[in-house]
Amino acid sequence: MPETSLIFPAREYQNRITRLQDRMATAGADALLLTTAADVFYVTGFLTRFWESPARPWFIVLPVSGDPVAVIPSIGAALMQRTWITQVRTWDAPDPADDGLSLLVDTLASLVPEQGKIAAPMGFETHLRMPLADYHALCAQLAPRQVMDGTDIVQRVREIKSEAEIAKIRTTCAIAGRAFDRVSEIAGVDRPLDQVFRAFQALLLGEGADWVSYLAGGAGADGYGDVISPATAQPLERGDILMLDTGAVREGYFCDFDRNYAIGPASDLAKRAHSALWSATETCLEALRPGMLARDVHQILRDALIAQGATPGAGRLGHGLGVTLTEWPSFTPKDTTPLRAGMVLTLEPGALVGPDRIMVHEENIVLRESGAELLSPRAPSDLPEIG
Amino acid sequence: MPETSLIFPAREYQNRITRLQDRMATAGADALLLTTAADVFYVTGFLTRFWESPARPWFIVLPVSGDPVAVIPSIGAALMQRTWITQVRTWDAPDPADDGLSLLVDTLASLVPEQGKIAAPMGFETHLRMPLADYHALCAQLAPRQVMDGTDIVQRVREIKSEAEIAKIRTTCAIAGRAFDRVSEIAGVDRPLDQVFRAFQALLLGEGADWVSYLAGGAGADGYGDVISPATAQPLERGDILMLDTGAVREGYFCDFDRNYAIGPASDLAKRAHSALWSATETCLEALRPGMLARDVHQILRDALIAQGATPGAGRLGHGLGVTLTEWPSFTPKDTTPLRAGMVLTLEPGALVGPDRIMVHEENIVLRESGAELLSPRAPSDLPEIG
Repeated sequence: MPETSLIFPAREYQNRITRLQDRMATAGADALLLTTAADVFYVTGFLTRFWESPARPWFIVLPVSGDPVAVIPSIGAALMQRTWITQVRTWDAPDPADDGLSLLVDTLASLVPEQGKIAAPMGFETHLRMPLADYHALCAQLAPRQVMDGTDIVQRVREIKSEAEIAKIRTTCAIAGRAFDRVSEIAGVDRPLDQVFRAFQALLLGEGADWVSYLAGGAGADGYGDVISPATAQPLERGDILMLDTGAVREGYFCDFDRNYAIGPASDLAKRAHSALWSATETCLEALRPGMLARDVHQILRDALIAQGATPGAGRLGHGLGVTLTEWPSFTPKDTTPLRAGMVLTLEPGALVGPDRIMVHEENIVLRESGAELLSPRAPSDLPEIG
Repeated sequence: MPETSLIFPAREYQNRITRLQDRMATAGADALLLTTAADVFYVTGFLTRFWESPARPWFIVLPVSGDPVAVIPSIGAALMQRTWITQVRTWDAPDPADDGLSLLVDTLASLVPEQGKIAAPMGFETHLRMPLADYHALCAQLAPRQVMDGTDIVQRVREIKSEAEIAKIRTTCAIAGRAFDRVSEIAGVDRPLDQVFRAFQALLLGEGADWVSYLAGGAGADGYGDVISPATAQPLERGDILMLDTGAVREGYFCDFDRNYAIGPASDLAKRAHSALWSATETCLEALRPGMLARDVHQILRDALIAQGATPGAGRLGHGLGVTLTEWPSFTPKDTTPLRAGMVLTLEPGALVGPDRIMVHEENIVLRESGAELLSPRAPSDLPEIG
């Protein structure tokens, strides 16, 4: 049994806490309530796949000064006590009569004055991972304390990655890069797509992924119809474009990028589309600077695709990345989030190649003061042919 | 591109809808709002790993009569249109100004009279997967319509599995059973535990899992300290007990069971503990009947462990299983959920084998009118020795 389970040294977490508490003080929040796997992992280093079970809620309460308090099911006590967290309060969950609610109310009541405020993420791209009825009971029992939106507190801190975090994401990207380099071992003419998906996940594990939280993709003549469907047993055919898009995880940090492969010789149509996507990404890599807004990145990618003669696809053209597969901001026409140095981002241009047929391309980067630095090994400029 | 993506024939979903609507009518709900991957999959067959991205909310609105309406991000339209669902309304997500809220409000307003009620799961073992601020706005905009707790409506329907669902879970259990039979290929003295975890996930994929949503376990002399921690690089040693516990997925249906292995010859202590766990499970398999309460199963397992000379571990001793890794009910002293034929359940006794050291054992069953029927291949009564 290891003595500690830290992922990072304690000072990494203490620095995160300080940054959160600075924003809490500015926003007038006396405590921050966190409930999701990502937010709990971010402040504690508590990493487990047990979140897959929807049975139990888990809570972290961060006061505006002082250390965080974990209010968690007793089954998690041993692991939480091996993190840097020293204040761990537990109950025997699942408990249909009181699933941690009274313990959470006690904890918040002891840390927040009656005229005080409790922040919880409740905005864009968030959800509250606890029963809604318990949340309503909590608000009633803690009154006159108020609950306020803590989305901005969490997102403005989490979106700036430390060098230690950037190193983790680079490691995960390298794992996926090595697996992508081996796709010719597992894909080719007549190979059913669902078998390719299974074998690619095994490649990722073999290259060092702890687990594979996301794998999507598609295959079809000169492109694919959508990029979120599970694979069917349809065999690959000569002339298909195979795309694999993975969110593998190592030590809690994700990559999220894709690669395209032509099964047999690629058509000119597919080659041109791949080249347009690759060049648009190149243009964006060169142009990106802190101070731009998220919507500017959308515009850069869109303009670059059009300049290459391609028809931009719908939807966002990239997003944040870190302790979840996707994070804010989103590269859409409407997202005005300012880009800052330290953000880890995906560039994900898509192009229409025919009716209901698209190709997509994705890289992962960290934004530096001087511009974009690649974290994923850059895709080849020419569409690779296999099988 | 396949024309349909159904998992089951449409009548399977229509039967689920009828059962939900019967309970909605009894409860006085005019519509049911569903937001989680499991609930959406349950009524539509919409299966994607894209839920891993927290960016976008997804909604299903089921009126008390008539077909369900999907209110979803446009990126999901192609896949949803290949299910049996015919009413699909989309918006371009993520949209920071209006992330589906107005479309959802319109949909609910058109289906629910002003004096009507909208049910949403908000109780034990649930959460609402949408931004809390949007939920509050929804309640305000739909007033005087009321939102009521729909937990019981969903749980009483989902907990009874059809024969088609039982067959899916049996298939997933068989995949995991074949992988467990091959553990000697990947585990042994000096093999680091994290490499065993990676290799076991690859075995599951090789045996037919679509993906591996959960793998936990532990290893240590005569037992392990906790069962939710990720693996470390600690090498296995002679005398260790290795436990692997997996929630593999095939076509959206989970298994959830574990197996123990002695690395080298097992000690008498470990053999006795394994035998007690196996025998307690056997006793429970023989005793289980519809009409018992969930807490009765806890008592049966606990009594059987004590009769075998073992010390029962803390926590729940099993739970429901299906389209998520764990479902209600929980085999705890407090859960009074009645057991009914058609429930798929795990029996998961645990025993203390020393200070901070436990062993656990788990099987998956379906409860029939006549008693328990195994879905997982039964563990060997004697602790297997490998490596």
